[in-house]
Order: sequence, then structure tokens, then C-alpha cells
Amino acid sequence: MEEEFASRVALTSHSGLNAIYPSQDPEMISFTGGFPDASLFPSAQLAASFQKAMQNQQAPLQYQVGEESQELRSLIANLLAADGTKTMAKQIMMTQGAQQGLDLVAKLLINKGDGLIVEGPTYIGALAAFDAYEPTYYTADMADDGMDLTAVKRILIQHQVKLIYTIPDFQNPTGVVMSVEKRRQLIALANKYDVVILEDAPYRWLRYEGSAQPSLKSLDTQGRVIQLGSFSKILAPALRLGWLTASTEMFGRLQELKAGTDLESSNLMIQTVTEYLGSYSLQDHLQQLRHNYRRKRDMMVAALQTYLPREACFTVPQGGFFSWLTMPKGFDLENVQNTQLKPNFHVMVIPSTHLFPGKGRRNGARISFSSVSATQIDLGIKRLGNGLSSSYQKKYI
Amino acid sequence: MEEEFASRVALTSHSGLNAIYPSQDPEMISFTGGFPDASLFPSAQLAASFQKAMQNQQAPLQYQVGEESQELRSLIANLLAADGTKTMAKQIMMTQGAQQGLDLVAKLLINKGDGLIVEGPTYIGALAAFDAYEPTYYTADMADDGMDLTAVKRILIQHQVKLIYTIPDFQNPTGVVMSVEKRRQLIALANKYDVVILEDAPYRWLRYEGSAQPSLKSLDTQGRVIQLGSFSKILAPALRLGWLTASTEMFGRLQELKAGTDLESSNLMIQTVTEYLGSYSLQDHLQQLRHNYRRKRDMMVAALQTYLPREACFTVPQGGFFSWLTMPKGFDLENVQNTQLKPNFHVMVIPSTHLFPGKGRRNGARISFSSVSATQIDLGIKRLGNGLSSSYQKKYI
Repeated sequence: MEEEFASRVALTSHSGLNAIYPSQDPEMISFTGGFPDASLFPSAQLAASFQKAMQNQQAPLQYQVGEESQELRSLIANLLAADGTKTMAKQIMMTQGAQQGLDLVAKLLINKGDGLIVEGPTYIGALAAFDAYEPTYYTADMADDGMDLTAVKRILIQHQVKLIYTIPDFQNPTGVVMSVEKRRQLIALANKYDVVILEDAPYRWLRYEGSAQPSLKSLDTQGRVIQLGSFSKILAPALRLGWLTASTEMFGRLQELKAGTDLESSNLMIQTVTEYLGSYSLQDHLQQLRHNYRRKRDMMVAALQTYLPREACFTVPQGGFFSWLTMPKGFDLENVQNTQLKPNFHVMVIPSTHLFPGKGRRNGARISFSSVSATQIDLGIKRLGNGLSSSYQKKYI
Repeated sequence: MEEEFASRVALTSHSGLNAIYPSQDPEMISFTGGFPDASLFPSAQLAASFQKAMQNQQAPLQYQVGEESQELRSLIANLLAADGTKTMAKQIMMTQGAQQGLDLVAKLLINKGDGLIVEGPTYIGALAAFDAYEPTYYTADMADDGMDLTAVKRILIQHQVKLIYTIPDFQNPTGVVMSVEKRRQLIALANKYDVVILEDAPYRWLRYEGSAQPSLKSLDTQGRVIQLGSFSKILAPALRLGWLTASTEMFGRLQELKAGTDLESSNLMIQTVTEYLGSYSLQDHLQQLRHNYRRKRDMMVAALQTYLPREACFTVPQGGFFSWLTMPKGFDLENVQNTQLKPNFHVMVIPSTHLFPGKGRRNGARISFSSVSATQIDLGIKRLGNGLSSSYQKKYI
């Protein structure tokens, strides 16, 4: 048969999302995946929490009929309140990781061709979600203190924009934190030009130094910020539990879209996490995560300083999972990775190509330190440095 | 702020999906939900399977990196093969219940305005999923042996149609089985007019009498049938695990859409069900389900025969969860439910209004017997009969 797919498939079939998946090469050291360190999962506690949930009178195996997730949503509201973001349990929706929040928000707002501002570079999975709604992308480049707001303002003046997507804390893929001044300015711009802001915050509670900036949601006075959170990075990805919080009018519509998409998230996982949060200290667990990831971050930064050629720049993230590598203009990291880094140096990063909507920028790469062991970090970055040096010299000297 | 939602929201905000949710009235007997009987969940076995999955060396808490679901997909391929449907593990994708399959297939095929044929009446959640892609709906009415294929043919001749959606086994909401002749004719029509068929089969293995008809997928020779299945009705809904099987070209595209939508289904739930199927007999469990649901079906049919007024018609389903009630034309079941059945008789069904895309048919209703106790079935149908009789007499006599 000759299938005729919907026009959105022309975009979604070139997301590059599979670049995250590991290589079959046993020698490979991969800095590609934004995976948490599996040795830090609270496995025993989650297993015990599951058993408790299953022993409860109300069987958690059935469809939900209404308020089953109420307790978890209240606990999340408390966590958000402690972080300075006021919301209510009834304005929190459970999602399949934060990823589903990206899909639902684009589904809510984006007609084909509608303007959507993203950071350049941005999270590859966000582009994969948004692509399905065929937006017109506008890119605001990342600076050391967050997205370029002069560019945002120019875009807002020149074009119809429905949505601004940002990861203000330990941005994926740059590791950058948006300054508090820029947060305030971004809210003011959104108010002035009547745009919704989608604040994606999966790494927010993984800060290794310095103090937290207020969330965009906490600065919002007009109900135009939708915030996404997730248990994927702080408990475990396979729970497939994230959350979304939005103002009342958008929230109701998002619930309807969620119902059509997959009816509901798993009550089994909802009750398991409810039991976990009731029985154990999430704060203690977060402390342990921060301690371990800070160590890896320090090793990564030390290795980058030691091994990278002087033409390379990189970010030093205060939290999260990523550092961002920039090579001089004209250096094609995707090409170098395919012809040199992978086959000859057995090391992988995520080249910048697919992290910009236009796929035109090729001299950057995301380096993830979260799931690589200490020994591997040093060895892998040494290989990366050698591979970059030899590729750079071949081309430029 | 003044939100401007995407145009799809005009449809998705009127799905009527919340009609399924139970009433707060403690006296209410509700035949609305298509819920399985919670007393039949294999809770202890699933809890044991979860523990086994958690003890495996490979932590099932991490993101999947590739072949984690291979074993479950092979087991599903075997179950399908035993049912006469040949497929391969690599053409089976795990989804969030069958519901996500509905969303993904519409996402794959439907541009705004594209033709989509549905059965009239059809599954309310399918309309909720499809609405988000703004199809042009065409309705083929249900007959005793499945959808009206004369109507399907006429629609295919007169309009551009991309997709035909059908539940051939124990249809939701009518309980009807499509005859084998109609199955063959439907495949022939789809071949001739180059249309994809979406076969939704969540109740297929819950047959209480008679013999199984071949699945549409088993009759497909051109790779144009996408089949959906689910563990929701046969194990437990809160697993949120269903599956989709499609031909190679469509399958790859559907995987990309799934990744953008929620990255992946829970590996924790995937490994739990893998352990369950390896340790226990699904066939024995299905036998037990069939035995129990057959009993409820019999009670429901006996009660309908005893209590309904003679103006009412109803279907006698050979499997699944539903019987379909039809009152004479002009009888408005939604109105009667709101003004009589609910407040005065404390009984609820799902009126036909939202089960047709045009929402214009009002003299039918879905009656679900799956999650109501034996005593409640008799008492509830008695109330329903009394309510219908008194409403009918008031209006027509």
C-alpha cells in the first residue's frame, strides 16, 4: 500500500532523538544519554513502597475514578511551596514524565504555523514533541545567563508567538541557569505580548552549588506560566511520573487532552510514589544525589580543563547533568563524531545539529556526566580531547 | 490573560468523556464505567512479579536503551499467533493502554479535515483521541453483524478517507461481533480504496460463548491493518500497558511519534508483566475471567428481559463488557437520565449522545455489566426498567 502520512510526520521523522541511544561498540564511552546514575536509585525503598501500595484496601490496580492522585498532588504542591512556587493540588496533573507535558502543552496551544520560541540549543525531546504540531520555530540563543531576551523581544515584535519554551535551571543541553533579572524580564515580555511560558524544570532540585533562583512560575502574576516537573531524574525514570501545573482555564483543557491521549497515568505508580514520599525523606535522598553528581561534575570539569584543546570552550554547570562544548565556527561536530570520535576514539557526545530547530549549527555538543562512572569520565574526556585536537589540526593547520 | 487555544480544543473540550466517572450519590447504581471487576485482578501474582522484576540484575528503574521490552513483545507475538494473527516482536510497540494507540494512529495519519470512518455508536475515548486531530467524521451505523458496509462503501466512493476505525469483537458500546463475511468485505474495501484500518481489540479474548472470528489483522494481506491490544481488561488497567502492531513503514513512524509524546512506556511495568506471563498461566486467568463475566452477562440479560419495558431493545453480547439499549426514536435518554434516572431512580447508564461524532442520536445507551455486583445488576436494571417505563409513559401515553 502507499501510505499517505499526515504532514506533521515530515518533521517528526527527523528528530534525531535516536542519537541518544547507546552504541553497540563495547569500547565506546558515551556521554550522550541524560540518564540518571542507576546506582543512586532508591530501589529497596521503591520496592517496599510498591508493596505497601498494593496492600492498601483500595486496589491501586483499577482505573482511577476521581481523587486517587489527590495525596500525591498535595505532596507535590508542598514540595513546590517549599521551593517558593505557590500552587494547589487541584492545579497539578500527573503526566508520563515531563515529556508528556511538552506534548500536551503544544497540543493545547499550537495550530500549524503558530509561533513558538525555543532556546538555541534546546532539549531534543521538546523539539520532537513540538514538531508534531508543526509550529513556526523562532530561536533565541543561549547566553551565560540564559536565553537572549533582546532576540526574544525582537521576535515578539515581529511575529505572532503563542508559546515560549525554556529550561531556566541547568538548561538541557547547556547547563546554564537563567539569571533572576532575565526571569523577571521574560515574565514582563510575556505579559506585554500575551504569550504563554512553558517552564520545564526537571533538574531544578539538583543544584550542586550556589543558591536557587525563583522559578518562573513563582514570578508569574497572570497565570501564563505552565511549569513541568518530574520524578525521572530525582527518583527513577521507569516510574514514568511527572507533573504539570497551570492556571485554571488552561488546566481544565489540558486534562481533557490528557484523557484523550492515554486516559490517565498509572495509579499503581502514583500510589507507590505517594507511599515513598510518606515513608522516606526525599530531602535526604536529594542530598545524596547532589553529593554524588557534584563529584561527577567536578571530575568532568577537571577532565575538560586537562584534555580539551584550547580552541574548545565549555560550560561549568552549577547543577543538572550537562556541560556544553563549543568548538570554533566551521568545525562540524557531527561529521567529526561520525568519522573520528566514534570509529577511532570510541567516544560519543550529542552534536548540536539536532538541538536547534533549523539544524544549522554544527560546532557544539552536549556532554552528559550523570550516568558515566568516575574512571570512564576521565578516560572518555581524554579520548574526546585527543579526537578533537587531531580533527582540528587536520582541518585548520 | 486571554488564552487563545489551538482550534482542536473546540472539539476536545466537549468529548463527554467525564460521563464515565461515578456519581457522588451513595444510592447510585452505575452501569457507566467499562471497568474490569477489581475482585478478579491477579493482585498477589502481579505483586510477586513486580518483586521478581525488581530483583533482576538489570535495574528496571532506568530509561530503556533498546531491547528491554523484547521479551514481552515476543510473548505478545506468541499470544497473537495462537489467536491466528501472525506478527513479529519487532512490529509490536508497547503503549499506555490501547488508548495511546488511538492517539498515535490519528497523529500518524490525520491532517485537519481528513476523512475518518467510525462505527455509530463508537467508543467515546476514541472520539476524544481523534478529535485532537480535527478529522472529518463519517459514521457507518452498527448492525447485528457489525458496521454497515454499504454505508462504508458509499462514503469511500464519495469522500477522501484516510482511516476506518472499528472494534470488531464485542464492540464498545454495542457488544456486537463483526461477521467473518463483513471482515473479508471490509478488508477488500480498504484495499480497493487504499485506506488504513484501525482494529481495536481490547475485549477480543473475553468471549463467553461461540467461536472466535479471525481478526482483521489476520485477514490483511497488504499491511494496512493496525491492531491494538491491551492488558487493561485482562490483567489490570493501572499497569497502563497496551500494544500496537503495524506494518514496517507505519511502525517506524509510530515509534517516532511515541518518543515525542512520552519517550517510552514504563520498563517497570513491562518487566512486571513479562515476569507474570513467564510465571503464571494467562490462559487459566482468562478462563476464570470468562467464567465470572459470563455469569454477570447472564444476570444482566435475565434482568433486562424481566424489567425493561417492551419498547426497549437490547443486544445480548457474546463477550466483552457491554449491552446496548435502544429506545424508540424521539426518546431522549440523556434528558431522561438527567431528569429521571439519576435523581429519582438512582441508576446511570451512558446515553448515546456522545457516542456518535455528530452527537445527534439520543435514543440509545451503553449498559456495562463488568464491574457491578450480581445483586446490584438485578436491582439496578429493575430501577432502569421502572425509570424507562415511567418516562416513556409520561411522554407517549
